[in-house]
Amino acid sequence: MKDIVLTGDRPTGNLHLGHFVGSIANRLKLQNELDYDKFYIMIADTQALTDNANNVEKVKNNIIQVTIDYLSCGIDPRKVNIFIQSQVPQLFEITSYFLNLVTVARLQRNPTIKEELKVRGFNNAIPAGFLTYPVSQAADILAFQTTLVPVGEDQLPMIEQTREIVHAFNNIYQPKSQVFSLPKPILPEKKICERLPGVDGKVKMSKSAGNAINLCDDEKTVKQKIMSAYTDPDHIRVSDPGKIQGNVVFAYLDAFCQDKHFKKYLPDYENLDQLKQHYEKGGLGDVKVKLFLNDILQELLTPIREKRLQLEKDIDSIYEMLFENSKKASLEAQKTLQQMKDAMGLNYKKLLEKH
Amino acid sequence: MKDIVLTGDRPTGNLHLGHFVGSIANRLKLQNELDYDKFYIMIADTQALTDNANNVEKVKNNIIQVTIDYLSCGIDPRKVNIFIQSQVPQLFEITSYFLNLVTVARLQRNPTIKEELKVRGFNNAIPAGFLTYPVSQAADILAFQTTLVPVGEDQLPMIEQTREIVHAFNNIYQPKSQVFSLPKPILPEKKICERLPGVDGKVKMSKSAGNAINLCDDEKTVKQKIMSAYTDPDHIRVSDPGKIQGNVVFAYLDAFCQDKHFKKYLPDYENLDQLKQHYEKGGLGDVKVKLFLNDILQELLTPIREKRLQLEKDIDSIYEMLFENSKKASLEAQKTLQQMKDAMGLNYKKLLEKH
Repeated sequence: MKDIVLTGDRPTGNLHLGHFVGSIANRLKLQNELDYDKFYIMIADTQALTDNANNVEKVKNNIIQVTIDYLSCGIDPRKVNIFIQSQVPQLFEITSYFLNLVTVARLQRNPTIKEELKVRGFNNAIPAGFLTYPVSQAADILAFQTTLVPVGEDQLPMIEQTREIVHAFNNIYQPKSQVFSLPKPILPEKKICERLPGVDGKVKMSKSAGNAINLCDDEKTVKQKIMSAYTDPDHIRVSDPGKIQGNVVFAYLDAFCQDKHFKKYLPDYENLDQLKQHYEKGGLGDVKVKLFLNDILQELLTPIREKRLQLEKDIDSIYEMLFENSKKASLEAQKTLQQMKDAMGLNYKKLLEKH
Repeated sequence: MKDIVLTGDRPTGNLHLGHFVGSIANRLKLQNELDYDKFYIMIADTQALTDNANNVEKVKNNIIQVTIDYLSCGIDPRKVNIFIQSQVPQLFEITSYFLNLVTVARLQRNPTIKEELKVRGFNNAIPAGFLTYPVSQAADILAFQTTLVPVGEDQLPMIEQTREIVHAFNNIYQPKSQVFSLPKPILPEKKICERLPGVDGKVKMSKSAGNAINLCDDEKTVKQKIMSAYTDPDHIRVSDPGKIQGNVVFAYLDAFCQDKHFKKYLPDYENLDQLKQHYEKGGLGDVKVKLFLNDILQELLTPIREKRLQLEKDIDSIYEMLFENSKKASLEAQKTLQQMKDAMGLNYKKLLEKH
């Protein structure tokens, strides 16, 4: 049986390099190399509202921004169904039934939720919708009979929660023939791709921290951000030895640099190891390394930027694509919902037939 | 503007005398005397599943039982829309958006939830769907633009929660023109009708405690239950003075007895006060009082029982009524959902038109 793949993003801002290495690159690889049955990318507007209830405009406007980011990077809407979560109403219903299979204590123990609660600073004012969003995420995954979920490591507890719901559902309703199969996560290949640091040296690149290089940033902005990126504060003169650890420029090189880039932009070195050795020994200035990184990132981002300009000329047809795909996704989710209700014994139409 | 009334029950068992005095009598009065715009009675199957996830059969089978109870008592399906909660999928979606407007701490403080958690003995395994059901109840009420909610006193915190959600929604999304109006509760007139004791003397008649006189109980069962009802354990001989306080038979008389019943069944007394005085003084036996109560309750229950027998001959048409009504209810809920999404700025179709 071929895989059904589902992944997605909250539409709360333009996608950045962290998204690219952490998920987009992985998705492109799957799109082009995996012989899958179906591939969905969900724009999680409903999920975004769980902590943006008073910021609907932002969520709404970023649906198209995130979609253009996908398409600019090469996600092919003929191969991948990009749809809008809120336009698949079955997801709300599936979520409701799943909420009865998960305890409040279990949700409060979810490591991702715990971590995000810290970051978001809700204190004791956690919206109920936020606490329960892992259940809604399980509904997203299971509504499409997903078998593979490309995620970052920080999202693994969500997959675990989903698997627990499958077990609970099968346990109560369907001990023999199973409605849902257990989804598996796929992580990015390189460790560095899990969590790209921000240009300011903070542990994670993020829109809210303002330390991101966005996929839609223009050439000048990208260069400025790279030139001001955090390196090694003790590496003052070119002759000083430099540290690789915690050095954002080398972290980005770890994520994006390939041997071919040296031939093209920095032929004095053969590969990244040589460059790192020289930097650690002393005698290699930050500017040289940053300009090299700039060459690599501009090579990556220029075609994305150009594609974006093209796509922005016909926003309407992108919206149409999204709404059509959402309808298709809704039909699939409806099939699952029906199977689910049949398994639960909630098929009331059969009551009528019985009499 | 005329009122829109909504009320309902969880389909977890046949309705009993506690339901009759606590809600059905009130509903019949409203049905026959109030000049309302719309009147809904919702069979809350989805809500029942929040603590009956592993007991779907019970919930499913009781939908028709509860409906027959309604109709037997005189609820008129031409005047009142009796519908099934799960058949109005918009309620799931409205609930999801409301979940973002309520904090987890607020739900944990809900007195009804706190009380019910004790009764149900979930310990720390509270299903998330159970904790959040007041939000789903708010969705039920608001989806139909309800202005009046006939409830028992123990449900007042639910109306309060609903009103808070209206405030939160209007505050964020619609400070001027308001989508939702504030619903008001209506309590039963007599205090005793709020919480009828069980035949065993326990504070509340309930199906789970097994101390209920069901509306569908046959004549013999009703009489047996009355004759074995808890009175005053110190009232041993007829000549002993008896206590009214805590005496179930007098509690039922408080709820059901009218002066006309004395003329018909116990002409030695003019009214309940006289009967109580005699009982307290001594010289009045339990059996006499119980037989009087039996006469009153059989007079109430016999036509209900006969109507039930009639109705049971054509279950199909009752199911058809329920499904048709659910469709109508769904259309109403859809209107509200649309208004709500417009107010939130979640109307995506307008995005298409803009470009």
